[in-house]
Formats: sequence, structure tokens, C-alpha cells
Amino acid sequence: MQVGIIGLGLIGGSMAIDLRRRGFADRVIGVESDPVNASAAEKIGLVDEVVSYERCVEEADIVVVAVPVGDAVKMVCDILDRFERSGSKDRIVIDTCSVKEQICLATRYHSCRPQFVSTHPMAGTEYSGPWAAMPNLFDGRACIFADVEESSPKHLKTIETLYETLNMRPIYMNSANHDVHTAYVSHISHVTSFALALTVLDKEKDEKHIFDLASGGFSSTVRLAKSNADMWVPILTQNRDNVLRVIDTYIDKMSSFRDAIADFDEGRIRELIEEANRIRKIIR
Amino acid sequence: MQVGIIGLGLIGGSMAIDLRRRGFADRVIGVESDPVNASAAEKIGLVDEVVSYERCVEEADIVVVAVPVGDAVKMVCDILDRFERSGSKDRIVIDTCSVKEQICLATRYHSCRPQFVSTHPMAGTEYSGPWAAMPNLFDGRACIFADVEESSPKHLKTIETLYETLNMRPIYMNSANHDVHTAYVSHISHVTSFALALTVLDKEKDEKHIFDLASGGFSSTVRLAKSNADMWVPILTQNRDNVLRVIDTYIDKMSSFRDAIADFDEGRIRELIEEANRIRKIIR
Repeated sequence: MQVGIIGLGLIGGSMAIDLRRRGFADRVIGVESDPVNASAAEKIGLVDEVVSYERCVEEADIVVVAVPVGDAVKMVCDILDRFERSGSKDRIVIDTCSVKEQICLATRYHSCRPQFVSTHPMAGTEYSGPWAAMPNLFDGRACIFADVEESSPKHLKTIETLYETLNMRPIYMNSANHDVHTAYVSHISHVTSFALALTVLDKEKDEKHIFDLASGGFSSTVRLAKSNADMWVPILTQNRDNVLRVIDTYIDKMSSFRDAIADFDEGRIRELIEEANRIRKIIR
Repeated sequence: MQVGIIGLGLIGGSMAIDLRRRGFADRVIGVESDPVNASAAEKIGLVDEVVSYERCVEEADIVVVAVPVGDAVKMVCDILDRFERSGSKDRIVIDTCSVKEQICLATRYHSCRPQFVSTHPMAGTEYSGPWAAMPNLFDGRACIFADVEESSPKHLKTIETLYETLNMRPIYMNSANHDVHTAYVSHISHVTSFALALTVLDKEKDEKHIFDLASGGFSSTVRLAKSNADMWVPILTQNRDNVLRVIDTYIDKMSSFRDAIADFDEGRIRELIEEANRIRKIIR
């Protein structure tokens, strides 16, 4: 099996490592538009060879599109066009996007839609680029499969095996639900972290104090604020309506806290904290 | 040296462990008002003996007050009164509060004020109680000493040695500045985490989805929302004015994000994210 990975960053690079060393792929080829990253990916040995986009789509049995979500929509459509022109029914393309409705809508009526499996492996760190790629990144995490009824059962099975190799737990969801849930759980966490970093950088002019005082839990809360704009700008705009709805609820909750503190209302602050503490039962 | 620790939770219990095993204290006695926690602290062996409050204040060379901030203010005043009545000038009391101005104001004109050293060891986890106590909790973290000019230089030196034993980096600040800085860096992180937990618990009725999707960075961002109300209600009310000021800035920043997303303004979203990314240079 030859796997072609487009985008050799954290997700694509980490997949390359584990798919090859765990024997799912005999050979991994990669595409990387940034020349510095491309040469790094080859030097690090993430892939057997860095090739052109065209060669990757022609030669790979499975093409993994691991680029930011805006580009991914256009690219998956283009790859399905190329599959159509070549007449091959055996090749598969998958995406790894954090927003699923738009890519599933854009491809829905394509004659080669059965050759596309839309997935979201929910793993990552706040770092990006080929240097961020690491073995075992996906182990034990959830992988969402969106709108699986649109994919050919045979190709779906192959991709399920791919993610099984990565030790991921499969979850099946329709693409619209996926976007609602990820807005609530993942996207809002990033927005709150960005806003926290902006607040502290604005208020705390003395950067040394930020560093000195960060042991109080700040560093873990602000970790996601290191995340890359290239990845997050298109996520936030593609999932705009869901994200706005959650931000509005969030601002409401924050305002309740604010009012309770302003009123010295200890009973109400306690109520809010104890309600928030219910998260203990869900997240270890 | 005999150290008496009042409040055998995460902070007091962890101090007990390291002060004894690293040889700073020959004997550690403890006070714990909750009978279940008291018996646990003795069984786990956090202290040599659980004693009454009165005995602790009479016998210990150094009394460490490690209780929630509301109680701590009253308790430190009472301990200074007892020092005064006993006539002893050698005994020392320290607090470990996350808010410093109120405790420093309340004790400022006490005749035994030189026997009080006000400190804030900035370490912790989101867990509490004697079971949360652990060795090495303080290693490498910052310890703030507030208003040191009010303490006797000799007693200050002893307490500096105590925190040196815990491998903490000393930082000297006046109590009012301390409260401003901790509001900006530590207290706001807790409030944003509480609000995030409330938002997600409200929006995401299906708890299984929270768990499944938490790999996307949510768990680290929401970690502090597990923190205990007994500890946090008095911190937020005692540091009310500073905390409100930071919450207001935070809501402004969040609203800028909201507006940029609502307007599909990719340039502005990118600007905000890249500004937030500056935190990379400060926090590893």
C-alpha cells in the first residue's frame, strides 16, 4: 500500500511516521508546498520521498489531505476530479479537517464521492510544522468519521483499518453534528485561550511577571493560544455560526461570574463554581 | 525545629512532606478541622501528630497557616494575639494566601507584626485535601514574599530558608502589587476555566460527546474548573476590584474575536491570533 500525504505538518507528518513504522504503508510519499518544510520533512525522514502534488494524486493508493481547512475543500474536489478523469475507482482520498459540513457539502454530488472518506482525527498539540510531528500522537484518541453513508463501504473499511493502525477510537457522526460538537468542545477552548493571552499581554506589561506567576495554572489554560493562525482562521470562519453561538453563551456565563463577584454574592459564586466542578465527572 | 501546619490540604500537606524529609523540620505537627481529613492526614503520615489549634500555636517554632484566605486573615491575627500574650518573640507565623493585601492590612499595626512573614507559594494542582498532597510540589516554582519590610529580618531569613528547602524561587513584592499581578495571571485563568466548563456543560447535553471530543485541547483548558469552591470563593471576593478589571478586559477581547468572526473578517482574526501567539515567547 502506498500512502500519499499532502501537508507534512503536525497531523500529516505524525501519520506518516506511524503508518509506515506500523506496517500499514509500504511506502509513504508526501507533498509540501513550503520549501523549507519540504526539505525538513525529507531530512527528518518523515516520508520516503517528497513529490509533486500531481504525482502524489496519481501514484498513491490513499491520498491524505492534511492542509488547513480552506485549502482542503478545494483540494479534495480537485482530487476527485482527477480520479474521475483517470477512471480509477480504487483510489481513495481522505481529509483530516476540524470542520466537516462544508467539505461534505462541496463534494456531495461528485460522481467520485464514494472514493472520499471524511475524517477528523482529534489529536494535536499547539505546535505545527514537520518538526512538530511525532510518533504515537493519535494513540487512544477519537477519530470522527463524517457522513460515512456517502463513502463506498469497501473504501470506508480500508480507512477504518488505517485509523485502527493509529490506535484511534472511531466515532460516526453526520457532518453538521460534528461541527456543532467541535464548536462546543474544541473550537471554543481555542477562542477562550486566545482571549486570555490577549488580556494578559495587554494588562501585564511586565512580561517577567507573567513568566514568574505562570505556575498558578495559567500556562495550561493559555497553552492553546500558541496555535497557528493559518490553521485557525479558516476553522473559525468555516464554522462561524456554531462558534458564534457558543461564544455568546460563554460571554453570558462570564458575565454571571462578573456580576456575582461585583455584588460580593458569595452564595452565587459558590453555586457557579460547584456547577462548573461537574466537569470533574466527565474529564479526568 | 518544630513546624506546625494548620490546614492539611494540598499546600499544607505537601509542605509537611518535603519539610520533614528534607530535614528542615525535625518534627511536623498539624491541625485539621475536618475529622475525615485529619484522620487521613495521620494515616497517610503527612504529619507526626494531629494536634489542637491551641497546642499547635503554643508548641511550633513556625506556624504555617494553609487554610482558605477568608479564614486565614482571622487566624493569623489570632495567632499574633497569642504570641503577644505568651511574650515569646521567637515564634513565627506565615500564611500561604493567594490574596495578600487584606491579610497584610489586617496585621499591619499588630505589635507582633515582625513575627509574621506573608508568603504565597505559587504551586498547586486542581485537586484538594490531604490525598492531593505530594512530594516535590513546589520545586522550581515561584514563592512571593509580600511586604517583607514589615517582618523581622531574622524571621524573614528563617522563612527564606524554609522556601529554599522547598526549592522555590523567591520574588519580593508589595501586597497590593501582588494582588494586581495574580489577578491578571492566575485568578483570571480560573474564572475563564469555570466559565468554559459552564458553557460546555450547558450547551453539550450529551456528556459522552464532551469526553469523546476532549482531545482537542479542551481538557487542559478546562482543568482549572475542577478547583474547589471553598478556596476560590474567598479569593475572588477578597481580590474583587482587580479581578473585575481583568474580567472586563477579557470580555472586551472576546467580543473583538466575536465581531471579527461574525464579519468573516479573516484579516482581523489573523491579527488577533498572531497577537495572542506572542505568549509563545514568554511561556514555554
